[in-house]
Amino acid sequence: MEAGIITLEEEIDMHGRMAMAINVIEGCPEFANLIPEVRANLVYARNNAKTREEIMAIDGRVTVVSGRPHAAGKPKFGASSHMARLIIEIRKTDPSLRAGIDFANNPHLAKWLEHYCHSKGWVFSVIDRRFEPEEIKEAEGASMPWKVKAAIEAAGGKVPKIFYETGAVGKEPVSVLVGSEPLVVAQEVCEIARLYYGECQG
Amino acid sequence: MEAGIITLEEEIDMHGRMAMAINVIEGCPEFANLIPEVRANLVYARNNAKTREEIMAIDGRVTVVSGRPHAAGKPKFGASSHMARLIIEIRKTDPSLRAGIDFANNPHLAKWLEHYCHSKGWVFSVIDRRFEPEEIKEAEGASMPWKVKAAIEAAGGKVPKIFYETGAVGKEPVSVLVGSEPLVVAQEVCEIARLYYGECQG
Amino acid sequence: MEAGIITLEEEIDMHGRMAMAINVIEGCPEFANLIPEVRANLVYARNNAKTREEIMAIDGRVTVVSGRPHAAGKPKFGASSHMARLIIEIRKTDPSLRAGIDFANNPHLAKWLEHYCHSKGWVFSVIDRRFEPEEIKEAEGASMPWKVKAAIEAAGGKVPKIFYETGAVGKEPVSVLVGSEPLVVAQEVCEIARLYYGECQG
Amino acid sequence: MEAGIITLEEEIDMHGRMAMAINVIEGCPEFANLIPEVRANLVYARNNAKTREEIMAIDGRVTVVSGRPHAAGKPKFGASSHMARLIIEIRKTDPSLRAGIDFANNPHLAKWLEHYCHSKGWVFSVIDRRFEPEEIKEAEGASMPWKVKAAIEAAGGKVPKIFYETGAVGKEPVSVLVGSEPLVVAQEVCEIARLYYGECQG
Repeated sequence: MEAGIITLEEEIDMHGRMAMAINVIEGCPEFANLIPEVRANLVYARNNAKTREEIMAIDGRVTVVSGRPHAAGKPKFGASSHMARLIIEIRKTDPSLRAGIDFANNPHLAKWLEHYCHSKGWVFSVIDRRFEPEEIKEAEGASMPWKVKAAIEAAGGKVPKIFYETGAVGKEPVSVLVGSEPLVVAQEVCEIARLYYGECQG
Repeated sequence: MEAGIITLEEEIDMHGRMAMAINVIEGCPEFANLIPEVRANLVYARNNAKTREEIMAIDGRVTVVSGRPHAAGKPKFGASSHMARLIIEIRKTDPSLRAGIDFANNPHLAKWLEHYCHSKGWVFSVIDRRFEPEEIKEAEGASMPWKVKAAIEAAGGKVPKIFYETGAVGKEPVSVLVGSEPLVVAQEVCEIARLYYGECQG
Repeated sequence: MEAGIITLEEEIDMHGRMAMAINVIEGCPEFANLIPEVRANLVYARNNAKTREEIMAIDGRVTVVSGRPHAAGKPKFGASSHMARLIIEIRKTDPSLRAGIDFANNPHLAKWLEHYCHSKGWVFSVIDRRFEPEEIKEAEGASMPWKVKAAIEAAGGKVPKIFYETGAVGKEPVSVLVGSEPLVVAQEVCEIARLYYGECQG
Repeated sequence: MEAGIITLEEEIDMHGRMAMAINVIEGCPEFANLIPEVRANLVYARNNAKTREEIMAIDGRVTVVSGRPHAAGKPKFGASSHMARLIIEIRKTDPSLRAGIDFANNPHLAKWLEHYCHSKGWVFSVIDRRFEPEEIKEAEGASMPWKVKAAIEAAGGKVPKIFYETGAVGKEPVSVLVGSEPLVVAQEVCEIARLYYGECQG
């Protein structure tokens, strides 16, 4: 089953939720501290999305301007490659997950996230890319399926709510949070930013 | 009956349609020729909106950058004063009208618009502000009710689809097009821009 | 004598002063109150500029976003029509004046500006467009020379530091401040905004 | 000797050259292909700059919007950390170098750059971070001095015009081009983008 021609209702819903999610993110100065070097992106997949052209993302990603999160461009279909492929892969296991965001990772945050997920009853997992087979590292486009499979296996067969990866040469480690739609995903990652940054400052 | 607390559904619908309407406007280079000196704004009223805080509009209006229409900021409740008061006033006569946009006016365009409205079966009218009573001109906030009343009277009791005003000292004359929601309003005004500019060029 | 090919030094100087002037304007929230309906523009003419292509201006003008002054686009040669023609005309009398900005006008501000200019030793004047001959109003491009001539005559033969116009049908009255370069012009208009708005609030 | 209070002349020069450099970069669509995952930044150091507050950089870095390079924010002192520390370190060996930009790296581009530098008579070098001592990797802020020293040693004691690094866990490899001021640096990196992308496409 393919995504098919988009209806006006679906397009309004997707643009509306993405616009509101961006307002949440740009309105959360603490999230600036969790934007990774590669910048964050927020994706929202159409139902039955199979290709990156069916995934809405923020054109130019979310960067930091004047110390605050700033969407460089507008939500657009096809604006993400990496996060789009990730959500497509995840949805093969759990099609209810249509949205995701990537954010910073470091050892201190990783430990904090593990505790936080535990307190929320969220599944959490880690991908250790040192275990990625050489033939997969070298094959174009083969890493993403391996990574998502590894994250799900490490979580006992379920798609984790939050996961991160470590150990790759030439790749910044990032955390990922997934959910059913982008507005809640934005609210969840901003709550993390406020709690974590509050504790780090305190 | 007041607008009341906004529901998530209403907010998603309003943000979604405004985002799509802005994409339509920014994607229509011909509309740059119809942006007035005061810049254009597009408004979308909540059902039962009574105050400008219940009217969504483009923060900073639509200006022209690199020769193309450009929304200076994002859609926001309360971002318009003039167009918000206009749509509130219009909705006292026809509450189905929730959206409107202002654009340029000049004698040649005015004549063209009159013919165009005729061909579409749209009601068209003109407000001659030289007939505005002095006591209304001088009373703060009294002009808008007078103007809208004049436009409706000139149209035989109906809210016109398109109207413009002329003859005021210190006021740029602008045209206004109204409709039930901003996406169709944007499509309609862009069709006008393409047709009119095509004819002017031709 | 024409402006000729621009040197690297001149281009760096013009981009540098415009960028700094925009930082001054965007850093002055009080100036948001003095942005007219037609939006403000800041121009900077090349030495010996004769055409609008030799005048740098802010593409898309300065609008108000989130309650603060916001340059919609970047400084660009040829980005202004109205203010470019004004500075070209002024420079026929005083070629040392290369920069100018337009801002709001109303009767209360007009009186305040007259006193302020007096206290600063600045020449101030008013153009009453009701005295503009009909044949000039109707001839394309004839108004600007008449207006500038009227402003200079009303100031006893000198180009005024600040002037404004009143009384035109279909035209918003704006104030204009001129100077030798845009950074000082921006600082001067922002001092006016802070002083005037401070007094109005107080 | 410290950088001291900035003069108006220096500030105009820095803002002017950065604005023009950004116009060059944004006007080069091919450079979009050379923007790394971490996004590019362009820095311009004050004479005698010792701290990142004395280095101008693009706030929010240069990202890709609508397929073209796009400066997310404006040039600002203190807007870069990584590239600012790099240029400070480089200037300890060659104080005439005040500007630099980072861009993508991959094995194919690396080989191409080596040939290109050879054809231009430019010094080129590579930093292999697998040789970075463990105690330096772990000490906060110690990597940059080591990296710059390694790049200069690999180039026989001179600061290379272009260099890149490889082999770090968790770090995207980027190329760096340095020069005396940002406008020429921007022109040089855009020439590389056009030539390299032209050859890749051809």
